[in-house]
Amino acid sequence: MIILGIDPGTAIMGYGLIEQKGNHLKALTYACWRTPAHMPLAERLLILHEQIDPFLREYHPDHMAIEELFFNRNTTTALAVGHARGVAMLASAQNRIPVYEYTPLQVKQAVVGYGRADKNQVQQMVKGLLGLDQIPKPDDTADALAIAICHAHSHALGRRMEEFR
Amino acid sequence: MIILGIDPGTAIMGYGLIEQKGNHLKALTYACWRTPAHMPLAERLLILHEQIDPFLREYHPDHMAIEELFFNRNTTTALAVGHARGVAMLASAQNRIPVYEYTPLQVKQAVVGYGRADKNQVQQMVKGLLGLDQIPKPDDTADALAIAICHAHSHALGRRMEEFR
Repeated sequence: MIILGIDPGTAIMGYGLIEQKGNHLKALTYACWRTPAHMPLAERLLILHEQIDPFLREYHPDHMAIEELFFNRNTTTALAVGHARGVAMLASAQNRIPVYEYTPLQVKQAVVGYGRADKNQVQQMVKGLLGLDQIPKPDDTADALAIAICHAHSHALGRRMEEFR
Repeated sequence: MIILGIDPGTAIMGYGLIEQKGNHLKALTYACWRTPAHMPLAERLLILHEQIDPFLREYHPDHMAIEELFFNRNTTTALAVGHARGVAMLASAQNRIPVYEYTPLQVKQAVVGYGRADKNQVQQMVKGLLGLDQIPKPDDTADALAIAICHAHSHALGRRMEEFR
């Protein structure tokens, strides 16, 4: 199974494509898509879509996993992230790729084993689980890989639970 | 000039297409796009895009005007509206239609003449300015027409100011 993890943002959108074979996880490609700050929002969303859509066509992941976001304070940030997240989810639906959402808590629990893990612990686990030489940069990319790993673990668990019924 | 006003939302997205000739405004078509509540978000965004994009191809408005939203409390709503807004702005950019944003305050000032106007006053002015028999329903549609009128007035003002320089 090929899983694409997405850490959504308008200025920078992290992505991480991993392959899951049984218990083994392998990173296929990971980086981030960026848009110029000076550009109107609609143009930036277009640039994002023009990067995500061909990527999905090329690699056609089985599933997309994306962070389900909760904001305590900053509604302006929520709205901005919502734009980018909407474009990523749209591209996924256009390519008939099912989208799964995970909260930051679920990602930490799935990757590190407990929900209060800090950013560095998550990143070290991403590096270790995927056998990478170093922690992927920027943070958005590492976060995207963490979301993909979360889905791999959750998905595998879901399958196992069905088998034991 | 043909202006498309958009009141963005995931469940219901109001639209209003108006034509501006000098001081005269005419409603060309207005209604709303809806998505089924039970459907996954990504699918709903796809349904929105599959309605907006052909509409833009058919009518090719000169400008899109969309509400610039500020939320005081509800970040979950901000995120949800952000998704739909992102898809509308993306469709606009894909069709090379410039997008203009207006705050609810600007819309009220442009349509009614003062920023503390209530919803009913805005709707009565929409009806009057466009010469409609009744207030368009639902509210999302009336709001979309108000945003389009706001842009018509603001745009005209911008042009007039240039002429008098």
